Amino acid sequence: MEFSSGFKPITIQPQEIESKSFEIIKEEFGAHDFSEAEFTVVQRIVHASADFELGRSLIFHPQAVEAGVRAIRQGRPVVADVQMVQVGINKPRLEKYGSQVNVYISDPDVAEEAKRHNVTRAIMAMRKAVKEAEGGIFAIGNAPTALLELIRLVKAGEAKPGLIIGLPVGFVSAAESKEELAKLDIPYITNIGRKGGSTVTVAAVNALSLLAEQVVE
Amino acid sequence: MEFSSGFKPITIQPQEIESKSFEIIKEEFGAHDFSEAEFTVVQRIVHASADFELGRSLIFHPQAVEAGVRAIRQGRPVVADVQMVQVGINKPRLEKYGSQVNVYISDPDVAEEAKRHNVTRAIMAMRKAVKEAEGGIFAIGNAPTALLELIRLVKAGEAKPGLIIGLPVGFVSAAESKEELAKLDIPYITNIGRKGGSTVTVAAVNALSLLAEQVVE
Repeated sequence: MEFSSGFKPITIQPQEIESKSFEIIKEEFGAHDFSEAEFTVVQRIVHASADFELGRSLIFHPQAVEAGVRAIRQGRPVVADVQMVQVGINKPRLEKYGSQVNVYISDPDVAEEAKRHNVTRAIMAMRKAVKEAEGGIFAIGNAPTALLELIRLVKAGEAKPGLIIGLPVGFVSAAESKEELAKLDIPYITNIGRKGGSTVTVAAVNALSLLAEQVVE
Repeated sequence: MEFSSGFKPITIQPQEIESKSFEIIKEEFGAHDFSEAEFTVVQRIVHASADFELGRSLIFHPQAVEAGVRAIRQGRPVVADVQMVQVGINKPRLEKYGSQVNVYISDPDVAEEAKRHNVTRAIMAMRKAVKEAEGGIFAIGNAPTALLELIRLVKAGEAKPGLIIGLPVGFVSAAESKEELAKLDIPYITNIGRKGGSTVTVAAVNALSLLAEQVVE
């Protein structure tokens, strides 16, 4: 097939754009208290959102990055709350370690059980996920109800995630769900406030898989 | 399957959360110059980002909403620049009108041609898209190079989109590409600045398909 049309192509390449972007972010971000590894995650999130306020609102459990890197290297699954998070995550980097991304929200049995128990599919998806993804990374970018359910399951001793990335966005329950997450003493990455979303959740997971490749323990 | 565990379920339902969120957004947004239909799109974008600054930075070509609604009702395709945009878009609402969402960036022929011409896959995907999606809605949330190429093709008379939703996010070329879009005299929805992304682009398309269902002409 021939799509070209004789015009001068735009020659700036994605790699070039990315490295220039990261320079700008570092420069404009200014002083902070994040560790070097944490800041790698912060930078990717700012890169995905162009939002420094969101970047500065991030909070990390002290073991968060280490736990995320370990989960990936051990080939633990990543659980995405919605399909947008699943498709955005870099799969080849995870597959090198035998890790994959699972999403349960569209499973027929989840829909059925949600109806039967009169709860959201997001909640039921978490109940299924914790049974199948012990030690995995739970990446929640959309549904506060999913995050609240996951927190409940952790407290009840029914879930043992390796890391929770809790970055749902929204005006109802999102900020509250993240406050609850930040009270847990298990590895988490979250933020203060309403902002978040699928793209920044993807950015966090992708930052961790890059760190898994790069960081020498 | 039985995922339930005897705990009190969280009973707030997605519909309830959504309508409460829209009330909050309307209240906090304050005075603005958007038309009623435009504000429906703005509200969905703020809902997806929790970012009023982003909402206020949106700009609409005077015919934008009308053109988007018409394209959907006529069953024109929606072209997404990346898979995250594709999966986020509400399909059943488009399918009622015979419209669907196409994404070209992962097509093997696009990859091949991009390599041969030494341009990004995002650019080559647009060259393929304009041949297959005349009159459609081009929804670009990720790649500024895709938007710049689409603008070039419009100027060259090689592309006739029904509506361009140009909301790429980023630090290099994103803001510039949107400035260029806003100079065109064809229907567009875009914003000023670096912010944007897949989730807000999805929100714009979903707002238009809701309007297609609701608005009486």
